[in-house]
Amino acid sequence: MLKSLNQNKSMTLGILGGGQLAKMLATAAYRLGLNVAIIDKEANTPAGDMTKLEFINGWNNRSELDKFIDVSDIITLENEFIEPDILEYIASYKEVFPTAATMRLVQDKFIQKSTLKSNNINSLPVFKEIFSINDLHEFGNRYSYPFIAKTRTLGYDGYGNFTIHTPEDCAAAYNKFNNSNVSRPLMAESFVNFKSELAVMVARNRNGETAVYPCVETVQQNHICHKVIAPARIAENLRTEAQKLAVACVDAINGIGVFGVEMFLAQDEKILINEIAPRPHNSGHYTIESCHCSQYENAIRAILNLPLGSPQMRMPAACMINLLGERNGIGVPCDVSSTLADGVSSLHLYNKKSSRIGRKMGHITALGSTMDEAIAIADNAYKNFVW
Amino acid sequence: MLKSLNQNKSMTLGILGGGQLAKMLATAAYRLGLNVAIIDKEANTPAGDMTKLEFINGWNNRSELDKFIDVSDIITLENEFIEPDILEYIASYKEVFPTAATMRLVQDKFIQKSTLKSNNINSLPVFKEIFSINDLHEFGNRYSYPFIAKTRTLGYDGYGNFTIHTPEDCAAAYNKFNNSNVSRPLMAESFVNFKSELAVMVARNRNGETAVYPCVETVQQNHICHKVIAPARIAENLRTEAQKLAVACVDAINGIGVFGVEMFLAQDEKILINEIAPRPHNSGHYTIESCHCSQYENAIRAILNLPLGSPQMRMPAACMINLLGERNGIGVPCDVSSTLADGVSSLHLYNKKSSRIGRKMGHITALGSTMDEAIAIADNAYKNFVW
Repeated sequence: MLKSLNQNKSMTLGILGGGQLAKMLATAAYRLGLNVAIIDKEANTPAGDMTKLEFINGWNNRSELDKFIDVSDIITLENEFIEPDILEYIASYKEVFPTAATMRLVQDKFIQKSTLKSNNINSLPVFKEIFSINDLHEFGNRYSYPFIAKTRTLGYDGYGNFTIHTPEDCAAAYNKFNNSNVSRPLMAESFVNFKSELAVMVARNRNGETAVYPCVETVQQNHICHKVIAPARIAENLRTEAQKLAVACVDAINGIGVFGVEMFLAQDEKILINEIAPRPHNSGHYTIESCHCSQYENAIRAILNLPLGSPQMRMPAACMINLLGERNGIGVPCDVSSTLADGVSSLHLYNKKSSRIGRKMGHITALGSTMDEAIAIADNAYKNFVW
Repeated sequence: MLKSLNQNKSMTLGILGGGQLAKMLATAAYRLGLNVAIIDKEANTPAGDMTKLEFINGWNNRSELDKFIDVSDIITLENEFIEPDILEYIASYKEVFPTAATMRLVQDKFIQKSTLKSNNINSLPVFKEIFSINDLHEFGNRYSYPFIAKTRTLGYDGYGNFTIHTPEDCAAAYNKFNNSNVSRPLMAESFVNFKSELAVMVARNRNGETAVYPCVETVQQNHICHKVIAPARIAENLRTEAQKLAVACVDAINGIGVFGVEMFLAQDEKILINEIAPRPHNSGHYTIESCHCSQYENAIRAILNLPLGSPQMRMPAACMINLLGERNGIGVPCDVSSTLADGVSSLHLYNKKSSRIGRKMGHITALGSTMDEAIAIADNAYKNFVW
């Protein structure tokens, strides 16, 4: 199973993208005895540094892509913005997961939500296709203000979202994404005044077997994930409901690999699906230390159709905090001693070659016998980190 | 602290040796955001595959060594057989730990035990230098048979040991190591009829601060470590005594890095020191999943003089079983599905390019709420592994 198709050596896992998710996938792959190939559009990415099989001209360069395909036995991705046509091209030579078909259902958020709805998953905000300023007005009039206008594709960390508070915002929202420079398909969604944001990671292998991680709580700052609390501090029946919903979502898109399902817990305690990430997810970093099998290893097990590992936590509580860049400049922190001094928190630095303000540069995970303990350890380690 | 000395980039950790210990060191280094360089005398070693900074002509090739030193900011080792002169040469350019001085105290087992004794560490078997067959007879007559003749240097996994049961064995033992082909300095040690074999990993940084891992029990088969049980199933006061002894040993050799101290628990419940390994150790593999900070990460923290991580276990019990080669041929197993099926054991495959019977090819770690649980999981996963 782990043998390369063509030779008496180990399989090579090809990863589209070389960022921190690829780095943590590569780490899991090496542990399982695999080789790793990375393709990205630049050199010296976090994962690219970890292998000689590094292809730096990007997957849109056909000859570079061909070389990458050639050395890989099976291929996956860390980036949800890859054109499904590229995945289809790859699939004509080597197996690639998630499939082009799954990515087509996920990348366009209107198609994504429509797919869920047609699979009888109704825990969704109200959503509609938008083709004009007038469509936005109609949505607001019918479902009330505020609501969200969002680009159907390519949005992340809040980019591509516009909150429409009053009818006067409709034109500005529409024109932001459709003007002489850009033309982006839009959708509208009802605004969820949430109590908390939740996420569940689901690994699903080629037999359709799933491993479902605990429902976690994500805390955003400036639309970027700041902190993840595992498990979420909500009633157990709600956590279970979130897990069931997440599995239904991944089944609906026939997902093979690992998927992050982001959800809102509304004020009325209804759970509403926000979106699906078809890859390892920031909200699952904590699984490396906390769970018997991490989201990264399960991503690999899933695509190799191996039995999935247990998503159960080894300790009762975990807290993960992202380390975002606080300067534009080199990516190496001044000192990590104060953060490491507690002895129990786990520091991950991605070794990105440059830092930008707000860029994800690393993270800290702390486990605890209680949630208060895990959060206190993580908060303290984070406070002591010096860029 | 993590910045390269000369440039605005991350430090590069150079590792002498590219085997599985280097692979697990490299994994910990990458997680901390470091780069990794590997030197070994062949290509495609487990750790060499994980970096472009791979030097394949060995450290005895001066120009190869120079290139390795050049790209490294700080250097460590996974192999205790490196000539101290090489370490001294390296130290004239870059910091290297453990130091040549420490290695001189460890590599020759007679000097090692003499050093411990001169530091008032008396939990030792009787030991003596041996220069002749007659010296062996005298040792046997004075301290009784059976006893062990062992080469003072280069022994591992039982190679270099000869058990002398009767006076008639003395000549054979001596002549095995001293004949027309070889001439190896010898020592004699009293035979310890042990109840169990113990080991304690100690990380010690440049400030002399230590992190002491739990006392574990090692089970050998054919002189090779088969299983590690953490913590050891002995009285707590004995485990504490073993930990104190281990720290005293590492202090005595002024060790900087991580060290494995192997001990015997004799029938009379006395603990006797067997030997010190100046590097990460097979008996500490379990720390990756079990402890807040693994022996590998603490080895790196120690040589960078960072605060050491906690050696405490996250769950009460762990069991590690080595996967030894069962054929001479390719290093990839036929199937790992059955081993992975339990979902909770952690499989490590080293991706060695060829297997030999008895060669360390991987390992399995299982954690448990109880020792019985951990052992049962590991035994079952091991039983299901198919080479």
